[in-house]
Amino acid sequence: MNVLILSCGSRNKIVQYFKKELNGKGKVFATDCSILAPALYDADQFFIVPRIDAPNYISEILSICKKFNIKAVFSLIDPEISLLAKHKDEFLAVGTIPIVSEYELVEMCFDKYAMVQILEKNGFKTIKSYIKKEEFYRDVDLGKINYPVFVKPIKGSASINISKVTSVEEIELAFKKHDQMMIQEFMDGVEYGADVYIDIISSEPVAIFTKEKVVMRAGETDKSISVKDETLFKLINDFVKTAGFKGMIDIDIFKVKDNYFISEVNPRFGGGYPHAYESGVNIPKMIIKNLQGEINESVIGQYAEGIRMMKYNEIKII
Amino acid sequence: MNVLILSCGSRNKIVQYFKKELNGKGKVFATDCSILAPALYDADQFFIVPRIDAPNYISEILSICKKFNIKAVFSLIDPEISLLAKHKDEFLAVGTIPIVSEYELVEMCFDKYAMVQILEKNGFKTIKSYIKKEEFYRDVDLGKINYPVFVKPIKGSASINISKVTSVEEIELAFKKHDQMMIQEFMDGVEYGADVYIDIISSEPVAIFTKEKVVMRAGETDKSISVKDETLFKLINDFVKTAGFKGMIDIDIFKVKDNYFISEVNPRFGGGYPHAYESGVNIPKMIIKNLQGEINESVIGQYAEGIRMMKYNEIKII
Repeated sequence: MNVLILSCGSRNKIVQYFKKELNGKGKVFATDCSILAPALYDADQFFIVPRIDAPNYISEILSICKKFNIKAVFSLIDPEISLLAKHKDEFLAVGTIPIVSEYELVEMCFDKYAMVQILEKNGFKTIKSYIKKEEFYRDVDLGKINYPVFVKPIKGSASINISKVTSVEEIELAFKKHDQMMIQEFMDGVEYGADVYIDIISSEPVAIFTKEKVVMRAGETDKSISVKDETLFKLINDFVKTAGFKGMIDIDIFKVKDNYFISEVNPRFGGGYPHAYESGVNIPKMIIKNLQGEINESVIGQYAEGIRMMKYNEIKII
Repeated sequence: MNVLILSCGSRNKIVQYFKKELNGKGKVFATDCSILAPALYDADQFFIVPRIDAPNYISEILSICKKFNIKAVFSLIDPEISLLAKHKDEFLAVGTIPIVSEYELVEMCFDKYAMVQILEKNGFKTIKSYIKKEEFYRDVDLGKINYPVFVKPIKGSASINISKVTSVEEIELAFKKHDQMMIQEFMDGVEYGADVYIDIISSEPVAIFTKEKVVMRAGETDKSISVKDETLFKLINDFVKTAGFKGMIDIDIFKVKDNYFISEVNPRFGGGYPHAYESGVNIPKMIIKNLQGEINESVIGQYAEGIRMMKYNEIKII
């Protein structure tokens, strides 16, 4: 059983975990458009492919899937996840299962404003968000929201062009400098991350690992500590079932005064997933079990509390 | 021969390299003020110590040096390097050699504006810099400098509060928001990093490894490629001898239209040092040789060109 990891970048740990899990039973293939993607060199075999926006991109990936008898494929970067979801049937036609949620759902994850609206519509608590700055100014006047607030791109990642601002002047500047910006309430609380696996056969959430983010760096969790909270598990379970996610997803949640607010969803392995894996929440194993036609039992909350994770730099030399 | 690495943070590779080099001949001790410093867990023995600004800090470190017969000590964070340089004699009095340059030199490195002035005074090409925004505006009017420019803290690190700006309005805002800011010319060229070792007995630069920075992330080199250029080696050699550095330093250099401009000096192991080490430039070995009373031969430029380095995240769990 071979697995193909697309746009592997520097996600060496994900490649390593699949290699370990497939040991003897299959190979891990990886792609990237750059030879400077270190995770390539941890795969059993790798391919340098065109950029995902190249016209022949999907056909190249499909031919790798056919040629190397790839059982399942997934991507580690956001724009490609939409692409995979869009071309799902073509992959299924060559016998490869793309591990991805539905296209509309995936697109919603990449639009922070759409996400807030969907959450609201379904009765989940959300973070106050504005795409029209005038509406925000009016709410400031009405005392409904206060500075500081965040100004960020509606479709952004890795904390690029995000700033915490305290004045009209800064908001005007940010909206002038960048297109498609939104204003979002500053959540003065604790931030959590959840690594979730929704069984692709039963559609049931079968793994939820939650951690408090202790230190962030460049928009990524640098240090975290595992936590267990039944209220949080229930919220996540309800949310992913309502939304209809499938496969592995990563959710950002804020806790302010005992209330949880879902902030963002990344419909892929999150950058902090190694914390979950090393704490015993083995999603690669669950994926492989699904690929063998078996349903996973729920292991929600089956890990120890208080496990601390710290990242450091390892290097590859070529 | 025991070595003590202070404020080891997430610099696991440095701890690992010293452990490998000392194998059997001595132990690596490490300290940090946080139990969430992953490099602690790679040392032979570690200590959680107060923050470097605590009144009893130096006496605690000195007592570790005495108790564990520490031959040499160095730090991996900037403010502590000044502290070590200041208290050099107290360490020497307990038989421990602090691997650090002179206090005034170290302080100069942490003041980007002072650095520019010293470079200029000694005839090295520098990056146009202003601490008075009015002088900058005047030079813009005179056509001596153009937008974009960088606004950054005079004493900053890790790209915190740095922004590339294109208008008076943004400069005014940055100066209003933060104290002690400076304006610096945008160098439209290639950025290099140099890992240098100046023999602590002979005071001669004995190792220079230079790399082109290919991708940056959060102010750190994420991907780089080794380069060799006699002009660059000569510039670095002249500069470190003129300035009088000792031990390991990391230099940032820009190349614009065939001219090299020294931008910054970190008087410690740089975040990209693993590239040099894995390319055969073994500074820990040179330090140990010095500690054994022997002078190192020059290995300047003794490495292959075109070696590529890529970082990825490894994790520690406790």
